[in-house]
Amino acid sequence: MNTEFIFVGTELLLGNILNTNAKYLSEKCAELGISLYYQTVVGDNAGRLQSVLKTALDRSDCVILTGGLGPTGDDITKEVAAKVMGLSLVEDSISKDMLEEFFARIRRPVSGNNYKQSMVPEGCTVLYNKNGTAPGILIEEGGKTVILLPGPPCEMQPMFEEYCVPYFLSRSDLVISSIMIKMIGIGESDAAARISDIIDKCINPTVAPYAKVNQVHLRVTARAKSKEECHELIEPVFEEIKERLGEYIYTTDAEVEIEDVVVSLLKKKGLAISVCESLTGGLLSGKIVNVSGASDVLSESYITYSNDAKMRVLNVPEEILAVHGAVSKECAAAMAKGCAAVSGSDIAISTTGVAGPDGGSADKPVGTVYIGIFYKGEVTVRRLMLFGSRQNIRESACIRALFMAAKLIDDIPLPF
Amino acid sequence: MNTEFIFVGTELLLGNILNTNAKYLSEKCAELGISLYYQTVVGDNAGRLQSVLKTALDRSDCVILTGGLGPTGDDITKEVAAKVMGLSLVEDSISKDMLEEFFARIRRPVSGNNYKQSMVPEGCTVLYNKNGTAPGILIEEGGKTVILLPGPPCEMQPMFEEYCVPYFLSRSDLVISSIMIKMIGIGESDAAARISDIIDKCINPTVAPYAKVNQVHLRVTARAKSKEECHELIEPVFEEIKERLGEYIYTTDAEVEIEDVVVSLLKKKGLAISVCESLTGGLLSGKIVNVSGASDVLSESYITYSNDAKMRVLNVPEEILAVHGAVSKECAAAMAKGCAAVSGSDIAISTTGVAGPDGGSADKPVGTVYIGIFYKGEVTVRRLMLFGSRQNIRESACIRALFMAAKLIDDIPLPF
Repeated sequence: MNTEFIFVGTELLLGNILNTNAKYLSEKCAELGISLYYQTVVGDNAGRLQSVLKTALDRSDCVILTGGLGPTGDDITKEVAAKVMGLSLVEDSISKDMLEEFFARIRRPVSGNNYKQSMVPEGCTVLYNKNGTAPGILIEEGGKTVILLPGPPCEMQPMFEEYCVPYFLSRSDLVISSIMIKMIGIGESDAAARISDIIDKCINPTVAPYAKVNQVHLRVTARAKSKEECHELIEPVFEEIKERLGEYIYTTDAEVEIEDVVVSLLKKKGLAISVCESLTGGLLSGKIVNVSGASDVLSESYITYSNDAKMRVLNVPEEILAVHGAVSKECAAAMAKGCAAVSGSDIAISTTGVAGPDGGSADKPVGTVYIGIFYKGEVTVRRLMLFGSRQNIRESACIRALFMAAKLIDDIPLPF
Repeated sequence: MNTEFIFVGTELLLGNILNTNAKYLSEKCAELGISLYYQTVVGDNAGRLQSVLKTALDRSDCVILTGGLGPTGDDITKEVAAKVMGLSLVEDSISKDMLEEFFARIRRPVSGNNYKQSMVPEGCTVLYNKNGTAPGILIEEGGKTVILLPGPPCEMQPMFEEYCVPYFLSRSDLVISSIMIKMIGIGESDAAARISDIIDKCINPTVAPYAKVNQVHLRVTARAKSKEECHELIEPVFEEIKERLGEYIYTTDAEVEIEDVVVSLLKKKGLAISVCESLTGGLLSGKIVNVSGASDVLSESYITYSNDAKMRVLNVPEEILAVHGAVSKECAAAMAKGCAAVSGSDIAISTTGVAGPDGGSADKPVGTVYIGIFYKGEVTVRRLMLFGSRQNIRESACIRALFMAAKLIDDIPLPF
């Protein structure tokens, strides 16, 4: 079923907002195995919208439009689509009731304009909106499908999941299921090269790499008659990937971040963590604290940016700073050890390094990072060379430090 | 000059990447006063690209294409554009030299494929690429302009600034200049309502609001014969806006963030800052440290997430925690005072609050935040009600705390 998108909204043409709907819908269609050849952005103008919709219907079986379903005079998508499909607009009583309930809840009268939102093309399927006042519309007419969705992502995405995913799946007799293999400590091109034969040979499931900041994600997606059959198809491919890249993998769940893994391992083992940060200046602790329930495992952290603070707060010996400097294996070790002693935590992570843009030397160029972890009476330190902007180097260091912590807590050797 | 965009790349159709080029180019064209009615995304397919380019040339004076200028067989934009414009490809010796220099620098031989990148349509203007190997192309033919730009934003944006901005300006005899009025502590709809008459009446300069997370930005853009004339047009409008919203404004420079303002004020006054964070868990310190040169003003910070850490590290009296709780005006004040004493800093900021999703009460619902600032022997505390996700509430609290600090250091009364 060849599909294309039309995004309606002058705010897109003015560059006021990023078109995140394009990425979301494209990714969803790729997962559903739907062919997509074109996307068009057009403003809130009836003539131009009519012309691009006609062009789209000439070359595709299905056209999905987002935006322009609101109550104002600018919102013309429904009217134009009905006209192009040769349908008149009729009142939908359920939409009208939902609209009136909505306005009763916020204690404001329904204005005449708002009632426009309960008018729908005759014979269409109405996609009821639980997150806003604009219903979506699905029209099947003359062998073509036209789907109208609201523009705000918080309304469009749940509506697509609830109505469109089952609609497309029902037309193909198949379901879709996927896992997301998330990896840290390996570059995208290196990872892709090591499994390029798997990526190339796999048709069902498909294997698609996604480059994230400092991480590599692989989505493995299968289509089959049931979810169980999908997972039977995915399993051997996952095993093959795990054999080659297993040491870098931290989850196969798209929703799980590395800080979630660390916090849940700490909870499971009843351990307390503290962080002392020079290079990362609070970002690492911030990531851990962002996991709901982090207060069970993190009581305190220290940002010791100056040498003086490293000595005073963490008891780093002055000699280490004088002989090796703050950016050194020795300092990272002493920071982690000091942090564990001061906080009384079971595990302590330290970060120190050169984030740039200034401060690099031949010996320790920008991107030189030391991460220290104190755990079970021992300190493990790694020297890393990280790349990118000041912000990227910091973000990378946090990700690597959390990955190291997860492996150590889980008694698994580090791959770097 | 009616212009439209064509973004070439199968990765866009698969949803692998967000189309940030669309937002960048749309915003630039809006600033330049160029009318834009359509944007199209198409994959790396010669037939389909040819068809959308022809459609675009039928309805617009100028078409800007991005992507598909690389060395591989998939990269077909230049070939298709030359064919549609009826031009043959010829070797550009400067591009060839630059290509060979590039490969000499990375010590690899130039492959045959790479030489494809030094072929350009006859009679075109070559847009030399300082950030990559693909030159851009500007073709003027039969009253139409076709501009080809590379896909990666880090190559496309500097090329657009260097070649395209002057090209468009040279055709209009006018220059463009703008300021970005950045505000904290006021909502978007409130700000827009207070100056809606200014937004509506202003044509040159234009006034456009942009909603950012927890901030409101207003871009004021003028077109005139010179930069000076632009600023003469902007000045009275800015003064009018300042009269109504001045207390929320922290900069008029698009590149400056609130943490930059705080760090530069601290440097100017020779003051040292420390932060103690409960709610924000390191994010506030992380923002300050992210300003290059922050080490001049920040030596250390404390993340005291548990009550025990607040007492032990910051000497918050147990009685305050027992009577008022950790999320209280009294605790925020004691944390800031304690942080200043422990660190010896001139100014200390504390944050405490309920980020959710759990932990709220009728008295202190999710989003209740206290920010304390110790400065010149006094503590200023504000209670705020912030909205959104756990992450949004944290981000908002950081932004507000930095804004409060900037006003206090500058001896300006707080607007909230």
